[in-house]
Amino acid sequence: MKKLFPQIDGFIHGGDYNPEQWLDMPEILAKDIEMMKEAHVNCATLGVFSWSVLEPEEGVFNLEWLENIINNLYENGIYTILATPTGARPAWLAHKYPEVLRVASDNIRNHFGVRHNHCMQSPVYREKAEIIIRKLAERFGNHPGVILWHISNEFSGECYCDKCVAKFREWIKNKYKTLDNLNKEYWTTFWSHRYQSFDQVEPPYDNGEFSVMGLNLDWKRFTTWSMKDYMDHEINILRELTPHKPITTNYMRCFDGLDYDEMSKSLDMISWDGYPAWNNNYESLWQTAADVAFDHAQMRGYGKGKPFMLMESVPSQVNWHPINKLKRPHIHKLSCLQAVACGSDTVQYFQWRKGRGSFEQYHGAVVDHLGRNDTRVFKDVQEVGAILRELKAVQGSTIKAKAAIIFDRQNGWAIDGVSGFKLHDMGYERTCRDWHNALTKRGVEADVVGCCADLSGYSLVIAPMLYMLNDGVAEKLKNFTANGGVLAATYFTGYVNKNTLNYLGGFPGDGLKEVFGLYSEECDVLYPEERNALVMNEAEYELKDLCEVIKLDTAKSLGNYKSDFYADTPVFSVNEFGKGKAFYIASRTESKGTDAITDVLLKASGIETKELPEGVEMHIRDNGDSEYVFYLNFTDKEQKVADTVLAPYDVQVIKHSK
Amino acid sequence: MKKLFPQIDGFIHGGDYNPEQWLDMPEILAKDIEMMKEAHVNCATLGVFSWSVLEPEEGVFNLEWLENIINNLYENGIYTILATPTGARPAWLAHKYPEVLRVASDNIRNHFGVRHNHCMQSPVYREKAEIIIRKLAERFGNHPGVILWHISNEFSGECYCDKCVAKFREWIKNKYKTLDNLNKEYWTTFWSHRYQSFDQVEPPYDNGEFSVMGLNLDWKRFTTWSMKDYMDHEINILRELTPHKPITTNYMRCFDGLDYDEMSKSLDMISWDGYPAWNNNYESLWQTAADVAFDHAQMRGYGKGKPFMLMESVPSQVNWHPINKLKRPHIHKLSCLQAVACGSDTVQYFQWRKGRGSFEQYHGAVVDHLGRNDTRVFKDVQEVGAILRELKAVQGSTIKAKAAIIFDRQNGWAIDGVSGFKLHDMGYERTCRDWHNALTKRGVEADVVGCCADLSGYSLVIAPMLYMLNDGVAEKLKNFTANGGVLAATYFTGYVNKNTLNYLGGFPGDGLKEVFGLYSEECDVLYPEERNALVMNEAEYELKDLCEVIKLDTAKSLGNYKSDFYADTPVFSVNEFGKGKAFYIASRTESKGTDAITDVLLKASGIETKELPEGVEMHIRDNGDSEYVFYLNFTDKEQKVADTVLAPYDVQVIKHSK
Amino acid sequence: MKKLFPQIDGFIHGGDYNPEQWLDMPEILAKDIEMMKEAHVNCATLGVFSWSVLEPEEGVFNLEWLENIINNLYENGIYTILATPTGARPAWLAHKYPEVLRVASDNIRNHFGVRHNHCMQSPVYREKAEIIIRKLAERFGNHPGVILWHISNEFSGECYCDKCVAKFREWIKNKYKTLDNLNKEYWTTFWSHRYQSFDQVEPPYDNGEFSVMGLNLDWKRFTTWSMKDYMDHEINILRELTPHKPITTNYMRCFDGLDYDEMSKSLDMISWDGYPAWNNNYESLWQTAADVAFDHAQMRGYGKGKPFMLMESVPSQVNWHPINKLKRPHIHKLSCLQAVACGSDTVQYFQWRKGRGSFEQYHGAVVDHLGRNDTRVFKDVQEVGAILRELKAVQGSTIKAKAAIIFDRQNGWAIDGVSGFKLHDMGYERTCRDWHNALTKRGVEADVVGCCADLSGYSLVIAPMLYMLNDGVAEKLKNFTANGGVLAATYFTGYVNKNTLNYLGGFPGDGLKEVFGLYSEECDVLYPEERNALVMNEAEYELKDLCEVIKLDTAKSLGNYKSDFYADTPVFSVNEFGKGKAFYIASRTESKGTDAITDVLLKASGIETKELPEGVEMHIRDNGDSEYVFYLNFTDKEQKVADTVLAPYDVQVIKHSK
Repeated sequence: MKKLFPQIDGFIHGGDYNPEQWLDMPEILAKDIEMMKEAHVNCATLGVFSWSVLEPEEGVFNLEWLENIINNLYENGIYTILATPTGARPAWLAHKYPEVLRVASDNIRNHFGVRHNHCMQSPVYREKAEIIIRKLAERFGNHPGVILWHISNEFSGECYCDKCVAKFREWIKNKYKTLDNLNKEYWTTFWSHRYQSFDQVEPPYDNGEFSVMGLNLDWKRFTTWSMKDYMDHEINILRELTPHKPITTNYMRCFDGLDYDEMSKSLDMISWDGYPAWNNNYESLWQTAADVAFDHAQMRGYGKGKPFMLMESVPSQVNWHPINKLKRPHIHKLSCLQAVACGSDTVQYFQWRKGRGSFEQYHGAVVDHLGRNDTRVFKDVQEVGAILRELKAVQGSTIKAKAAIIFDRQNGWAIDGVSGFKLHDMGYERTCRDWHNALTKRGVEADVVGCCADLSGYSLVIAPMLYMLNDGVAEKLKNFTANGGVLAATYFTGYVNKNTLNYLGGFPGDGLKEVFGLYSEECDVLYPEERNALVMNEAEYELKDLCEVIKLDTAKSLGNYKSDFYADTPVFSVNEFGKGKAFYIASRTESKGTDAITDVLLKASGIETKELPEGVEMHIRDNGDSEYVFYLNFTDKEQKVADTVLAPYDVQVIKHSK
Repeated sequence: MKKLFPQIDGFIHGGDYNPEQWLDMPEILAKDIEMMKEAHVNCATLGVFSWSVLEPEEGVFNLEWLENIINNLYENGIYTILATPTGARPAWLAHKYPEVLRVASDNIRNHFGVRHNHCMQSPVYREKAEIIIRKLAERFGNHPGVILWHISNEFSGECYCDKCVAKFREWIKNKYKTLDNLNKEYWTTFWSHRYQSFDQVEPPYDNGEFSVMGLNLDWKRFTTWSMKDYMDHEINILRELTPHKPITTNYMRCFDGLDYDEMSKSLDMISWDGYPAWNNNYESLWQTAADVAFDHAQMRGYGKGKPFMLMESVPSQVNWHPINKLKRPHIHKLSCLQAVACGSDTVQYFQWRKGRGSFEQYHGAVVDHLGRNDTRVFKDVQEVGAILRELKAVQGSTIKAKAAIIFDRQNGWAIDGVSGFKLHDMGYERTCRDWHNALTKRGVEADVVGCCADLSGYSLVIAPMLYMLNDGVAEKLKNFTANGGVLAATYFTGYVNKNTLNYLGGFPGDGLKEVFGLYSEECDVLYPEERNALVMNEAEYELKDLCEVIKLDTAKSLGNYKSDFYADTPVFSVNEFGKGKAFYIASRTESKGTDAITDVLLKASGIETKELPEGVEMHIRDNGDSEYVFYLNFTDKEQKVADTVLAPYDVQVIKHSK
Repeated sequence: MKKLFPQIDGFIHGGDYNPEQWLDMPEILAKDIEMMKEAHVNCATLGVFSWSVLEPEEGVFNLEWLENIINNLYENGIYTILATPTGARPAWLAHKYPEVLRVASDNIRNHFGVRHNHCMQSPVYREKAEIIIRKLAERFGNHPGVILWHISNEFSGECYCDKCVAKFREWIKNKYKTLDNLNKEYWTTFWSHRYQSFDQVEPPYDNGEFSVMGLNLDWKRFTTWSMKDYMDHEINILRELTPHKPITTNYMRCFDGLDYDEMSKSLDMISWDGYPAWNNNYESLWQTAADVAFDHAQMRGYGKGKPFMLMESVPSQVNWHPINKLKRPHIHKLSCLQAVACGSDTVQYFQWRKGRGSFEQYHGAVVDHLGRNDTRVFKDVQEVGAILRELKAVQGSTIKAKAAIIFDRQNGWAIDGVSGFKLHDMGYERTCRDWHNALTKRGVEADVVGCCADLSGYSLVIAPMLYMLNDGVAEKLKNFTANGGVLAATYFTGYVNKNTLNYLGGFPGDGLKEVFGLYSEECDVLYPEERNALVMNEAEYELKDLCEVIKLDTAKSLGNYKSDFYADTPVFSVNEFGKGKAFYIASRTESKGTDAITDVLLKASGIETKELPEGVEMHIRDNGDSEYVFYLNFTDKEQKVADTVLAPYDVQVIKHSK
């Protein structure tokens, strides 16, 4: 069992702390320390948006206040996660060097404002960022209270400035080498789009080229490359100056704009900011929880199974959902312990104390404008702090998953870019979540991984809608199955290569036809209210949205369509391949069908399941010596699991020594 | 009793008249005079959009036609309201001096077109406006037929040109004096937004700074300042040349873009353009009427209780509602007399005669393209003209309201700018209207006033959602209550100061916690279909949208929440404060709850109420000697009020001598 | 009977073929020929998007491959329709000469990309187009395999570049001659919009002038003029070099952006691209079919009754509907033969073979990525090919319609431009379709024609919502009726002249009041859920949306309103005028009312009807000697018409010799 941070005994409990907003109110700063201790806070994240205070004028630095804060915290037993302050730039930087501001796809440069609004390829921005980062690293990098670097904040966005466009061209040229290759992979002879020079390549524009799917996809890849290239610039400085301090950046929930698999290559640990809409009006509490379990599993995936950090979460309501409900009683405890159950080694909040103005003045915080320590929210936080202390032995343990869901960002981009079928509404993410939820319901832990992940440790891999086959993916799936794995794929698998060029001769392409023993002839699309059904073992399961008409070669049907002109043709099939089995699901199931199929898959792969009451989640953290079984009751009723009785909204952690 | 215009015996009946569109058809102009007399019209509004005819080329003036029209009207007993023609500029002005055109928030300057599209800070526009206004004032300012100046038309809109941005910076600097003060009030340390120079201040932009709530609010305040600054430019010219002619400008219904309380400071009388959607499909006729009564009450508020003018209204359908229904029979009479009942001394139309082309060719008018005097619409107008003659003794009387609703435009801007809770849908205006309607239903006249109004004459003040406390407002409310007034406030009161900086230590802030004897700990938000209930005196009243969880100090609960985790905590409370009482309503009531609470408030304030059948409105105009009681039946059934029998859609005016 | 193309015996069966995308895969090209023959394909459309392959660099030509393809096709009995490649420009052209790219209404020039994105007034574009067109015409114009020129592709769009704006000013000046005339027709005195110079005229802009209805309409007319002006540039080159080759361009379904009546003046034959959403979820199959029958009738109208071409259609799903369903079994045959039944002499597809990438990679094609000839789709196409061969005697015959619906594009623009009534939702196209469908249901063939069409051959003309009366239209309708025709008009007839200036003295104007013997006093608008009813012969028929209140002079009422304040006033009236009758329908009927009125109109005009089961369509093609009666069963049930039994989805063609 490895300690995440050797300085800290057990879990981190803390959050974003912005004392620079209160420097003129020392009584507030004193109260903060006092209340942090009351709330069992052992770590504060500092400096995320401090640049304009740290460097109020170009080249004029003001780091004293920060030193005082770090020292004061440290003396009170509270560690610091220190952020590079590049998530938002000072006004002087934007006004003196407009090039640091991003240019939108209409070629208009942003004004100064908000945050996360700088060009990742701007040399000036990099230079100015380096100066302040060096100052911070030199002064605080070896402070015993500082345990982690937090790079910038929630990376996101694109830039269309001349520098970025030039970099994009360079990136394209580097990838495709020759114009012939580029034109072929992009299928540019269509609509007379052939490039006659790399200089003609432009990003996709609404008022320009948006009809070349490969180009659209490459722009998204480039944006990830560019963001990582910038992040690496910051990381390289820190690696040089503080080689022993670990580094993270805070991810966002299922963020569509970046391929976090790529970003993760540069990080020591994965952390994320989770803001689910608990107690919403469109799903049960457990459905919300199941989706959050998926999110946590995705973070495990990025970290190759290691514990991750819940860097931000809110003790009560946020300020940006359409309806911002208070967190109901029990929910704070449940949600924090779910994070731990799913592999987090921290529970952190945004933020410690509500600011008095600007955009997030109504974003929940541990301490309200009211300033009291007897509020419901403060007591909820206090309770979680105490529980985490009790559970400290769990810290460092991991989740041993035998199943994996492939949910791949680049594949998602490719699917979203498809012009056809159910236009702009193919439902990739929801589909992956649904398969994961079916496993969670059975107490089966499944990692969520990208298409390039190592699958060798898994017994079962479900790869929903793996439309695009990046290089080597088909081969890997083939080997996984040949070596005894159970592989399940669905409609919309293997249509295109990594540049969205269609395979000829039948989908799923790149050799997967043989793995699944079938090919797809057509793909029908249903109107939202239309249904077909899978008929299997005399039961019927509703089908919706997409219905592939498939032709079996060596595969055997396990269930057929009930109606329409393809009635009695296969929906669900299995093919023996090598030592394994390859299942194919040709249409989209509702949850009962997903459950029924999941049972078949689990049986085939020999993974144990657990009978769980509806609304109860189980997760197991394992430190080699012991298993910690978490039962979480996401219902308002008492529930029993084996011998464990769970009160409404209760959490129980049971230790099994091995 | 003061006469609005000494020249006119009784009410003004008339409207916008655009003879310049018909100068080549003298038979039409002759017919106009004839039909105006048939319709009992005694006043015409001229020149609103005449600039391009008055000054067809720069420096070339053509005022003869206008003189002929004014004379001809006057000789026929019809007075003139003369407009400055600056609501739309001539093409030559826009083409020769592009600076007069507005720049949108994307920094793109408008093309010539439509109207109300000029920069309020353009020196050229002011210069050219001054030239034509001087010409008009010199020639017509002392004409006995001209009784009122009508400044420009329906002021609205913003400009982001360099001149306006520079003026905004100057305005900001003038307001905040020091950068420290600005940064503190704007809470700019958040997201590293600190200004290091006033030169860095920019207006809010979608692609710039939109996250500083104080800045967003100040931009709106500046826009009002800039518009009034321009209006004053016109007014100063007229005050110089025609010091005895009164001046107005025409307001729009509950227009969100300007603070009319500020604008009104420069005007001699208040006038507005009212275009309700009578007989719509989303509310009863009475509900429409109740909202219009609110609108009229707001105009009384701007005029500090004086009679106002209904400068524009339509005798039938307009052309800009999604569905433009004909005004059903009786509705024209009802709506015109409702205006009078609520304090208007005029009934005026847009417009006299339908134009043959362009944007408003299907906007209703007294005379249709058909040109006949036997149409339903013409006869409706004729009837109203005759009734107004009969009622002439009512003219000049006023409404004596004992209650007031505080509905403050700047507070509305602050609320709309909130990021949080029920995002972008806090319902401020609807809430204020609902409280006013509850009073109207009981025959209680309530003024609608801004937060800076003098409250000393009222017994009851309801201040819904007074989120922002401008300087002195809390003190005024405190004094009002201490001196014996009944004050009612709701959830979302006193959260921020005038620059949207949160009060620390508990809402409602700035001393109001003591007035209401409580503080708010949290504010829950309900999904649209969710309901809680207020339990009061064994009855239950539905609650929705927003539920504050409050803690009472000295206040007593009058009713509690029925359900949710804050069940049995207070919703409705009262606090004895000085000689008065301060009521607090912590959640949003449906109409039955609003009614029940209103009864409590009215009883506490000793205001008499009247039992009115549903759908019947009562208003009383008082000229010191007599009261004129208006009963308006907004139902399709016969109704009785005391001894008065009202036919369907009937209006009765009963005089009570004092 | 005239042969459409003397070279081809019977119908054309084929479609767009893009071999340039496969030049590096000769086995594909060989397979294409083989499979075309299997599918009974006799014609391929080449070169639509080939410019970048034909002229890979400026002035460097590569026509060999095209010659090989044309030769190879010809040797295998397959003819070529050759396109000018100007539907999409090569990258070098856009990059070297940016002026060829369009400028949007925000004055921003497009980037290179997609297609149909060039300025129609660019001299450079015309020059470069001419060069490549001359090359093609010189090399292939006399090839025996090339039977038709296909000009560019699906013309559409607008350009706001300086050149276009200057041309627009020239066009305006040429039309109106004097400023006085312009100002009068545009009614610019309204809102002070008078032009003092033609140089001030600008196109309509969202941030400029959009309130002058005449200007808005003229901009659309100008856009058609400009597009035709460009098209004529291409046509003139071809007329010079290949005077005997016929010329077409492919229209789109009911495309709103161009007046095809104008475009058609330059073409030898009419062709269109039809992509209906068969088996959708918002209407019955027959309703879809009825609308397609309307579309075909419109193409007959453009071609003055001659056979037309179905230039593009899809054998299965398209890629741009929100839901892209597979064509169900039988539908391909039904839809292709419906085109033939309605007057098409071709059945052509987009496209022959699915490309491997870019925007249309999932647009249905005869040959799938799968590449097999045993797919459902391939067999459907094969079947149609075989049937067309059997029906070859039908080719060249025409439809003899005794009725016409006036559906005029310019009138539609004028209606869409109206500010008033049911705002931006007046439903013109749907209304015209509904009247046509009522005739189709009775087996009555009706042409769909513009307002300038020659009406002399018809017995019945229905002119729904003929809001705008272009010059001479009222006179023509008057003469048509006076000479014995039956004319039917509806609410919203004759409100404005060709420049949208209202008629004075009563609608319908320009002399039509006398033809119909009535005038309209008001036009009420109903909310979507509101209904009134037409009471006629003791039956009631629902009315919706728009209800004119009319006053009869010489007309007689045939049915009155049931309710509202205009109850018992006329809805449906007839006026004897000369030897004919003029019917007026003052409100919008639901389909039963439309049917009942249609019966009255048909009886009055003496047109024979046919009793058809619901869902069965009948069309008759007549070649002078014989009639070919097509019965199409758009239901899933067996149907009988006289002696003919139709299986579900069946088509029967019965020849009657004369």
